[in-house]
Amino acid sequence: MVKRNIYLENVPLKEAYNKFFQRIEELKISPVGEKVSVEKALDRITAEPVFAVISSPHYHASAMDGAAVKSVDTYGAMETSPKQLKLKQQYVPIDTGQPLPLGFDAVIMIEEIHEVDTETIEISSAAAPWQHVRVMGEDIVATELIIPVNHTVGPEDIGAMLAGGIWEIAVRKKPVVTIIPTGSELVQPGELPGSGKIIEFNSRFFSGLITRWGGEPRPQEIVKDEYQKIKEALLEAVKQSDVVLINAGSSAGSRDYTAAIVEEAGELLTHGVAIKPGKPTVIGIVEGKPVIGVPGYPVAAFFILDLLLKPLVYKLQGLTPPRRNIVEAVMSRRVVSSFKAEEFLRVKLGQVRDKMIATPLPRGSGVITSLVRADGFVRIPQLKEGLEVGEKVSVDLVKDLSEIKNTIVSIGSHDLTLDILANLLRLTYPETGLSSAHVGSMGGILALRRGETHLAGSHLLDEQTGEYNVPFIKRLLPDVKVVLMNLAYRQQGLFVPSGNPKNINKLEDLVREDITFINRQRGAGTRLLLDYHVKKLNLDPQEIKGYGREEYSHLSVAAAVASGAADTGLGVLAASRALGLDFIPLARERYDIIIPEEFLETEMIQRLLEMINSDQFKKEVDKLGGYDLEESGKILWTSH
Amino acid sequence: MVKRNIYLENVPLKEAYNKFFQRIEELKISPVGEKVSVEKALDRITAEPVFAVISSPHYHASAMDGAAVKSVDTYGAMETSPKQLKLKQQYVPIDTGQPLPLGFDAVIMIEEIHEVDTETIEISSAAAPWQHVRVMGEDIVATELIIPVNHTVGPEDIGAMLAGGIWEIAVRKKPVVTIIPTGSELVQPGELPGSGKIIEFNSRFFSGLITRWGGEPRPQEIVKDEYQKIKEALLEAVKQSDVVLINAGSSAGSRDYTAAIVEEAGELLTHGVAIKPGKPTVIGIVEGKPVIGVPGYPVAAFFILDLLLKPLVYKLQGLTPPRRNIVEAVMSRRVVSSFKAEEFLRVKLGQVRDKMIATPLPRGSGVITSLVRADGFVRIPQLKEGLEVGEKVSVDLVKDLSEIKNTIVSIGSHDLTLDILANLLRLTYPETGLSSAHVGSMGGILALRRGETHLAGSHLLDEQTGEYNVPFIKRLLPDVKVVLMNLAYRQQGLFVPSGNPKNINKLEDLVREDITFINRQRGAGTRLLLDYHVKKLNLDPQEIKGYGREEYSHLSVAAAVASGAADTGLGVLAASRALGLDFIPLARERYDIIIPEEFLETEMIQRLLEMINSDQFKKEVDKLGGYDLEESGKILWTSH
Repeated sequence: MVKRNIYLENVPLKEAYNKFFQRIEELKISPVGEKVSVEKALDRITAEPVFAVISSPHYHASAMDGAAVKSVDTYGAMETSPKQLKLKQQYVPIDTGQPLPLGFDAVIMIEEIHEVDTETIEISSAAAPWQHVRVMGEDIVATELIIPVNHTVGPEDIGAMLAGGIWEIAVRKKPVVTIIPTGSELVQPGELPGSGKIIEFNSRFFSGLITRWGGEPRPQEIVKDEYQKIKEALLEAVKQSDVVLINAGSSAGSRDYTAAIVEEAGELLTHGVAIKPGKPTVIGIVEGKPVIGVPGYPVAAFFILDLLLKPLVYKLQGLTPPRRNIVEAVMSRRVVSSFKAEEFLRVKLGQVRDKMIATPLPRGSGVITSLVRADGFVRIPQLKEGLEVGEKVSVDLVKDLSEIKNTIVSIGSHDLTLDILANLLRLTYPETGLSSAHVGSMGGILALRRGETHLAGSHLLDEQTGEYNVPFIKRLLPDVKVVLMNLAYRQQGLFVPSGNPKNINKLEDLVREDITFINRQRGAGTRLLLDYHVKKLNLDPQEIKGYGREEYSHLSVAAAVASGAADTGLGVLAASRALGLDFIPLARERYDIIIPEEFLETEMIQRLLEMINSDQFKKEVDKLGGYDLEESGKILWTSH
Repeated sequence: MVKRNIYLENVPLKEAYNKFFQRIEELKISPVGEKVSVEKALDRITAEPVFAVISSPHYHASAMDGAAVKSVDTYGAMETSPKQLKLKQQYVPIDTGQPLPLGFDAVIMIEEIHEVDTETIEISSAAAPWQHVRVMGEDIVATELIIPVNHTVGPEDIGAMLAGGIWEIAVRKKPVVTIIPTGSELVQPGELPGSGKIIEFNSRFFSGLITRWGGEPRPQEIVKDEYQKIKEALLEAVKQSDVVLINAGSSAGSRDYTAAIVEEAGELLTHGVAIKPGKPTVIGIVEGKPVIGVPGYPVAAFFILDLLLKPLVYKLQGLTPPRRNIVEAVMSRRVVSSFKAEEFLRVKLGQVRDKMIATPLPRGSGVITSLVRADGFVRIPQLKEGLEVGEKVSVDLVKDLSEIKNTIVSIGSHDLTLDILANLLRLTYPETGLSSAHVGSMGGILALRRGETHLAGSHLLDEQTGEYNVPFIKRLLPDVKVVLMNLAYRQQGLFVPSGNPKNINKLEDLVREDITFINRQRGAGTRLLLDYHVKKLNLDPQEIKGYGREEYSHLSVAAAVASGAADTGLGVLAASRALGLDFIPLARERYDIIIPEEFLETEMIQRLLEMINSDQFKKEVDKLGGYDLEESGKILWTSH
């Protein structure tokens, strides 16, 4: 029925944007208003200006408890020659907020009144006209503008409107954005997915974005990858929405129907935008409503929504999106970028010394955690080759600058105890964060060398000396003064399927005929550990079947064992737990953190050290099992 | 029953704060958690860290449509010597997202495959291991930390948690803040209040603030000023809340019961805080719950809530309040401040030339519009006498800096046409604002002289020459190069009660025996207009009864007429309409705007001029009636 387009267009973002919004202009798609009660108007956008109906105060009101007087009657009153005033003609008792009787124009405070008798008071200073009086209209004058159109209603606006006698106002109707998740591989959250099945989280992710932009998200049920079903869902959705998103099927694969459906049902404006991530995007109009075919990968989807949907949702509220704050930063690593597209590179920022350092995050468009961890992004223009180390870049911030400045950047080997520290820090000092990137021990030392990180977790065993970390620091960080602090000793061991069917109990079993092994890559701490012990035991690596097969993480090793591709592999307890494997403890290894001396006295790091030395840290780590904290927090070595 | 305390304490803010929060510590008042579905967790604060249950992807997934292969089988394939692969043993067709079969470790894109027959493909380049594969855990590794405790959940976090197999999380329960409005003078919004009655808007204002801080506001019914009733309401409220606010009765007047009630029902910590506005404040603990007696005036209430309740609401969510952005500014006016209290001065900011200029807003604690219009506030320490003109100050921002920089500051005489312009600007350029302060024509010219404003509205008639504005500019702004532009001609006239019972038709009627007049203050444009015409008509001011009685605004004049204190007064149509008076047009006057030349070419002012010359402006002004726009937008005079 439908021809498969193998090729996408590669339309520059600006061109795609202009075409889309020009069409929206032509169709006169514009904001709609609705009435809401002022009390419920918080954070809504006014669709009309609001003018006061009454003044506030709407009469001359006393601002004090005391007596209302006519100022002319008080002239001449002094400490040395007080004046007496008579009830009714010359004074009237009054409380705060009460109206001044006609003809009275000032108030004398109760503290300054001497009561002579029930009908006479004595005063010892004159009252200026309108003294202690809130004159009519002091705050708001009837008919005056309280708030203009296109204004976001704040708490104080609600107060002022009610004070001005306004009970109901016209606000922008929240733009309705319907989200149609498509894909036969999708399953709803709530059930753990089988192999080949994916949890449908995008519609919830998009809903959060749309809510934050002031729209009303309407996520729909999952639609299978069938042309007719998707088309029906789309035609139904455009009737009830201001904008429709189809996610995904927006590329040019055999089951990518979005472009063809939009073309058949309406008008296809663009198929393929020259940005990375985000290329496989469909833009069109169906039944007068804007439709976006959003890429399936969440990071690609994010940028497409941020660049195309956000301005539309704001426009439908009469607004333009707030500009992101921008910060200047220095690239910590080289990034090669394609000529084919404008790239949106997520970066982690760290205030290291006086510089803001930008470190690229994983660039895969399926890595939603790169958005969770991103502090901002750098736009690399289409015709730029990439970014050099040390290059100055402008970063569009997605987090608060103060939050960024209060975050300890940790790059290196990962260990669960770092997560525990991150949580303890947040609990004790809610404004201080610890953000970890997992690139392995060696990656962490290299990040220290480039000045990208405040600390690095490391468990590198030197095969020659049996010493941890120090030989590597000496070799790789000759110019950085650092402190090496132990965080924990932890167990490494062999992963085996639950019940240990092949009865593997020690490293020597790896050379057994019936055992296949799965290894870690060269340079990994765990690989060094294996090689060290293999050598110590005088085993021949050649005899270990699978010694040459390398995986890049604890979890990949565990996965290979879980899937049956190997009988066993070496790693940490947590990875075996994650996949329900059994764990044969083999060796205790030292897991340290390396901290440049210059950061040691900063408030952030001091707080971290306080956490490391806390009882609660010990308690939480004990719960994990497999750890030993006898040297935790101890400085093991410093460079001089 | 209750002794009246005439005097409040004057406890320094820091002391009152520390006493309050120390007591809260002692009582171990701390955050409470509750479970919510991840989909509904947007903007909630995590009460526990969230760890992934499954990896994402949870299997090695193809990242492309094409064929899964074993990379070793592809080695050696080249353009010049392609390789053939056999179905099942060597390749398996695969779509994006599908799992790689066991033993396969790479994907070749469909575009790079040549189909030889149904069971054979040909490739012309080798596949690297894991090419076009999203390896298991690429995004999330089971058991790893997704987000820490005390983290505000964002859209991307929702996506990542669902991807990690988390459907429900523990978040902080929103702190419940009950608000008890007290006061026999209060009436609910929805009915226009009679004299002496005040609309109860504070509880709605507070609710907005509490909502923004993450709390759950529970405004109650109005309680009359009766000791027993307020006490009952408080005792009921503490049972169901985390914090209780009593508004007001927090001062030391005859009907101020809050302090006594808190003392009787629990523990009174502080009564009277040395800040301005905000002094009449009660702080205490009742039944283990923090209770704040909040001042009745909205601005005083705002600062007390901002300083004492906000940190508490955040604390109950495990957080500290975000710090306000701070901007350095220069004071445009002298402000004298009392030694008795730390003052929180609301200011309007304007980027005038390269400087940020801070202009104090009305200081009355009842003026809620000073919060509506405030861009920030300046803290004046207790022992500081005040601020000098030109003094550098730090301003705590309550608005976005970019919003402030995009706002035209207008200080001077007010006219409704300025409100129309403000709205048209917002409609056409949502990011551009026009903020008007109403200080009269002369006040506007003085603001121009001090460099406080981008423009000033003025309608000053020179008695000698009959000329508008120019003589005043020449005299008062000799050093500022300005452009004088007409905005409109408008009608001034006499206000008379509806139906015009005394049959007043012309200015000559003012000298009639049976007529009493109410005048404007010296220097007001309207006073100049009156004097000019009185002189022209050869009337003797001495014969106008009430000529010496001066009011300070159009509305006060109208109010005097409406209340019967005078038979008539002079002013603009809008003020008579506001109070339902009849209007006898008398004279057409010119209303101009004065713009320093240096601002004329700025984008903001150009946009304003575009609005002045727009058809829509003319249309909206025509609707008002009483205006003539024949010279609107015309430059009438420039200084050289």
